[in-house]
Amino acid sequence: MEPFKVSFLGPKASFSHQAAVEAFGASAQLTPCLSFADAFAAVQQGQLDYAIIPVENSSNGSVVQTLDLLADRNEIYGDVEVCAEHYLTVHHCFMVRKGVSSNYSSITKLYTHPQAWGQCEAFLSKNFKGVERQDVSSTSKAAEIVSKETTERSGAIASRFAAEYHGVDVLEENIEDRADNTTRFLILRNVHSERSTRLNFGPTSTALKTLILFTVNHDSPGALADALSVFKDHGLNLTSINTRPSQRRAWQYVFFVECARVPTPQNQEAVTRVLQSLPQVTESCKYLGTWKDEF
Amino acid sequence: MEPFKVSFLGPKASFSHQAAVEAFGASAQLTPCLSFADAFAAVQQGQLDYAIIPVENSSNGSVVQTLDLLADRNEIYGDVEVCAEHYLTVHHCFMVRKGVSSNYSSITKLYTHPQAWGQCEAFLSKNFKGVERQDVSSTSKAAEIVSKETTERSGAIASRFAAEYHGVDVLEENIEDRADNTTRFLILRNVHSERSTRLNFGPTSTALKTLILFTVNHDSPGALADALSVFKDHGLNLTSINTRPSQRRAWQYVFFVECARVPTPQNQEAVTRVLQSLPQVTESCKYLGTWKDEF
Repeated sequence: MEPFKVSFLGPKASFSHQAAVEAFGASAQLTPCLSFADAFAAVQQGQLDYAIIPVENSSNGSVVQTLDLLADRNEIYGDVEVCAEHYLTVHHCFMVRKGVSSNYSSITKLYTHPQAWGQCEAFLSKNFKGVERQDVSSTSKAAEIVSKETTERSGAIASRFAAEYHGVDVLEENIEDRADNTTRFLILRNVHSERSTRLNFGPTSTALKTLILFTVNHDSPGALADALSVFKDHGLNLTSINTRPSQRRAWQYVFFVECARVPTPQNQEAVTRVLQSLPQVTESCKYLGTWKDEF
Repeated sequence: MEPFKVSFLGPKASFSHQAAVEAFGASAQLTPCLSFADAFAAVQQGQLDYAIIPVENSSNGSVVQTLDLLADRNEIYGDVEVCAEHYLTVHHCFMVRKGVSSNYSSITKLYTHPQAWGQCEAFLSKNFKGVERQDVSSTSKAAEIVSKETTERSGAIASRFAAEYHGVDVLEENIEDRADNTTRFLILRNVHSERSTRLNFGPTSTALKTLILFTVNHDSPGALADALSVFKDHGLNLTSINTRPSQRRAWQYVFFVECARVPTPQNQEAVTRVLQSLPQVTESCKYLGTWKDEF
């Protein structure tokens, strides 16, 4: 069989790229996409087997771009479903151009993504107080910049994965403040694709997760509690709730409910039954996939 | 009695400023604050009677800065409570320096906040295709820049409120794509303040809203459904749910549950009873205030 084609949120050597390598291994054919919407469009059009995109970070919360595309308000990604998830622990390293001395005091400029400054505060205030900081669009870009620099003595904060990709020297590892900073990625496939049903993701876990969206109206506030009761009544545990504006009418929301079950003969039909009951208490609802819980 | 002291999220002539004028009237003493955290700190320290901050936009969703401060993870805003809400309809205008001709084709540069470009796409593509755009930190700042410009022929997108504040000419009103784009503000007070109990906000409405936060752990997924059932069991309708990372442990969440009730003799104690029951199914919970539903 041909290798799987997988798109990740670019640039190359991004955390999404690293997650793609971890989830799909070296044999897959990995290509970067420019935006979240490009990843969805490529899956919808069947141009590739999978796309992998971030959905949640343990420190910063939900990635609203991903939620808004899953909401699919203009009904253009109807064949996209979630088929797996992947957890990536976010470790930052401090790196310089190959051969530059490892003396921190000679560094005059630092590069990284705006979010990474905040994640490495202790390291930065200990070693680089007052040193000029330049925001860049990704940590991978930061590593690339220092790899090409010839005049300045600059350093970047990025992953070891990015350091190896761009060929720079890591001077210090795990410089992040929180050891447990983790990003959860969703893996998307096209429901009509035969090929993409064949890959078995990750270690076998006992629980299954399911993602279901629904809209309820602000005018009928009891509807939200009623909709959530439907999940409970059928033995599905809520693991996550997110809300986004429907963008159809003000104060109408899309709710993203992720629920889990340990499969038993009794709950085999639970998701089907939830999807049969939800229309009675919601304005609309949509099934977005079931996958193995990797947590 | 001295006029009420109210802080709004600056700069002057921001949408928060406009919301403050609408909610408190001309007699209040309004001062801008530099950040969301400054507004919370000023209320906590009793430096003023109220602060007004945005919490949700009907198109863009929740304002996570406000949610994160309400979560009060470091327990420094323990005396801050929500005492009212205010809905502000967001209207954009196109404006130029006083006396500049109203000929659109002579305009060579446009200024506004990044979010406003996206909210006025139809107007911009009809009248200003290809014209240079400059992002600025607020729509009020955009109005200020064109008010001071002497060489360029530039225009700004901002509110009529900002146009009047900075003394510029409005050439076209209501240029936003969506007529129903609305921002909801919360009004904060200090629970120990005597003065701030005296103001009666807005028109009398029949329903009361209450905001309660709680944390549940990822390891006990059934807990979320159980916690939400507590609200239902006591006759409180859920009107909104938001989630943010607890930032104590990965995948531990703070849930923001807003619920409403039409006051009756039967449900007078409902909130008290919910707060008594929640600790049995949550890790922690916190009452954040009750106010009149202005929706």
